[in-house]
Amino acid sequence: MKVVTCTAPVNIAVIKYWGKRNEDLILPINSSLSVTLHQDQLKTTTSIAASRDFTEDRIWLNGKEGDISHSRLQSCLREIRRLARKRRNSAAEDTVSRILNYKVHICSVNNFPTAAGLASSAAGYACLVYTLAKLYGVEGELSEIARQGSGSACRSIYGGFVQWVMGEREDGKDSLAQQVETESHWPELRILILVVSAEKKHVGSTSGMQTSVETSPLLKLRAETVVPERMKDMIESIKKRDFESFGQLTMKDSNQFHATCLDTYPPIFYLNQISQRIISLVHRYNDHYGQTKVAYSFDAGPNAVIFTLEPTVDEFVELVKRSFPPESNGDTFLKGLPVKPGLLSPDLLSAVGSDLCPGGVQYIIATQPGPGPSKSEDVSLDLLGSDGLPKQSV
Amino acid sequence: MKVVTCTAPVNIAVIKYWGKRNEDLILPINSSLSVTLHQDQLKTTTSIAASRDFTEDRIWLNGKEGDISHSRLQSCLREIRRLARKRRNSAAEDTVSRILNYKVHICSVNNFPTAAGLASSAAGYACLVYTLAKLYGVEGELSEIARQGSGSACRSIYGGFVQWVMGEREDGKDSLAQQVETESHWPELRILILVVSAEKKHVGSTSGMQTSVETSPLLKLRAETVVPERMKDMIESIKKRDFESFGQLTMKDSNQFHATCLDTYPPIFYLNQISQRIISLVHRYNDHYGQTKVAYSFDAGPNAVIFTLEPTVDEFVELVKRSFPPESNGDTFLKGLPVKPGLLSPDLLSAVGSDLCPGGVQYIIATQPGPGPSKSEDVSLDLLGSDGLPKQSV
Repeated sequence: MKVVTCTAPVNIAVIKYWGKRNEDLILPINSSLSVTLHQDQLKTTTSIAASRDFTEDRIWLNGKEGDISHSRLQSCLREIRRLARKRRNSAAEDTVSRILNYKVHICSVNNFPTAAGLASSAAGYACLVYTLAKLYGVEGELSEIARQGSGSACRSIYGGFVQWVMGEREDGKDSLAQQVETESHWPELRILILVVSAEKKHVGSTSGMQTSVETSPLLKLRAETVVPERMKDMIESIKKRDFESFGQLTMKDSNQFHATCLDTYPPIFYLNQISQRIISLVHRYNDHYGQTKVAYSFDAGPNAVIFTLEPTVDEFVELVKRSFPPESNGDTFLKGLPVKPGLLSPDLLSAVGSDLCPGGVQYIIATQPGPGPSKSEDVSLDLLGSDGLPKQSV
Repeated sequence: MKVVTCTAPVNIAVIKYWGKRNEDLILPINSSLSVTLHQDQLKTTTSIAASRDFTEDRIWLNGKEGDISHSRLQSCLREIRRLARKRRNSAAEDTVSRILNYKVHICSVNNFPTAAGLASSAAGYACLVYTLAKLYGVEGELSEIARQGSGSACRSIYGGFVQWVMGEREDGKDSLAQQVETESHWPELRILILVVSAEKKHVGSTSGMQTSVETSPLLKLRAETVVPERMKDMIESIKKRDFESFGQLTMKDSNQFHATCLDTYPPIFYLNQISQRIISLVHRYNDHYGQTKVAYSFDAGPNAVIFTLEPTVDEFVELVKRSFPPESNGDTFLKGLPVKPGLLSPDLLSAVGSDLCPGGVQYIIATQPGPGPSKSEDVSLDLLGSDGLPKQSV
């Protein structure tokens, strides 16, 4: 039995992906761009074992056996095996040849709640594809395969700042992720995830974006005329580490994505009253300072992702804590990177208003840009035991 | 002293007006279309007195003296006096000549709460312009002047179904309201106003639409590419009395207007959680019947305007009552046209879900399409006394 264990990161889009031009190949109607989050805070770990003793492919997700026949899972398995066979033909490796005929057991866990709107499928499929690639000794371009698991997964194949170029080809061979800058490019950048609600979302992103493509005239116009310009501007603002421009584009693009959801018929609402309050808080905070010090982005759910620079973190977190007083005694309110208690000036407090909403934010995860997937060399981290089944602790 | 008293209606746009291409003349970036509501339920009453004893122009709005120097008010006064002078030259009338040199006292009241998001400025300016026209004996096209008071006021100059053609000229002479069909064209049509919150709105529509024009790329695309098509389709659906098409277009256009508000930077939110619940209730209701029996429209506030046909009113009102149980004992929950208690089938109840929100809807006004402004012949309705000041009861 051969076991390989890898980890992969979550990514947060700052130019949003919403809408496919091809449902099977997962080809998007516009390019998108994301920041890969650090795996110290958020990651998926996947172990894959191959053995001649296995009678069927099996998968366990967060401790429960899942459906291996799921079409997107099958796409990833099929494509990576096809790639491994192709490479094997040119540089024949005995081990790989043998393993390719074995069934696999896949075991995957997230260190964060699934379906909390934290793009777990992106990290999950990136990790699956990366781990399979390591198992079969496949090198090179993997984002095209990860994309076929979950569109945004292709961006989790790289660290730092990553664009998913939409491509033009019908077979999707040019619809790939590319690293724009590495994770060390903008060391001051920080990301705060404000977990607003862990409820499962009403409309899943797969069906939501399909309805949007079918019914929203504005989505089509956004994809064709707005995004191409914004991609250029966003890449430039990242390269220059220009937070003013980066933050504004991030907020505008998040708002436009949610606008197209509202333009969908029937309309889709992902932002709730707490999300709206966070948006208002961010704008008042920036207005107070006369510059964009903090920016929000929301995916297909009410949680806010806040981008800011290191010197602003303590104060802004304090402000969130004050505006959404934690209902429990607060020691689990802050997770991730250390945050020091901040001081709030009376001027700032009067500028942002005193409208309190207890319990509106459940907790905050503080993180930063991080690297792409990696292979674990520590066998103690394997999720599968020597019997090829998930370890008890998983 | 000469006193004239007139009334004018509220209108609800089903193709929304949002954005000016000329702020001074109030020229819109797209055409719009509205239904004029019946004055039995909602109206503005305005009395205007002219007397040589008056030393200055004065105005009272809902019992309080207002600022007569307000620029839009001045535009209307100036334009209608100019028109009166022009007409006088051709067909000299002694009375009008004399009155035109007098100062005026204007007194205006609404029979519904101002600033409740019920487009009180549309009825108000339409009534002002119409009453001034009667005072000065001006006949003919008044919508161009009403438009200069408040854009949507031009549509309140006519009854029934009214389009405001955006026009092309820089001087706005072709930016006019036109009646599409009279108020008797679609006798079964009913309108329910669900008053969600009487709070004053956060962002007024004048400044809101200005920010949208300046910052929303989607608004520009909507005005240029979506609305022209929708105007045609809407007029056709009204002419055919096709509620399926009328209702769907109404909902889609309301959603798209709010989408452009969200695409504005900083974003504007007019819909709250109750508005979202009403939207969801309407879609579930229609889904249950497999047809569009009810449609919503929201202006720059959280109140819902529901369009439906007479046979559906009782049941849908009952459903609203059930989903948003009135907090007081319910005898003031229903205003306007009579509504009978409806029966809700178990099938319907299980289809719409049992998520209750007590007090979410404050009250309902039931009404129907109605006629345009008219002059009162009953002097007891004059709001100004023989001393030229508001009567005590006003």
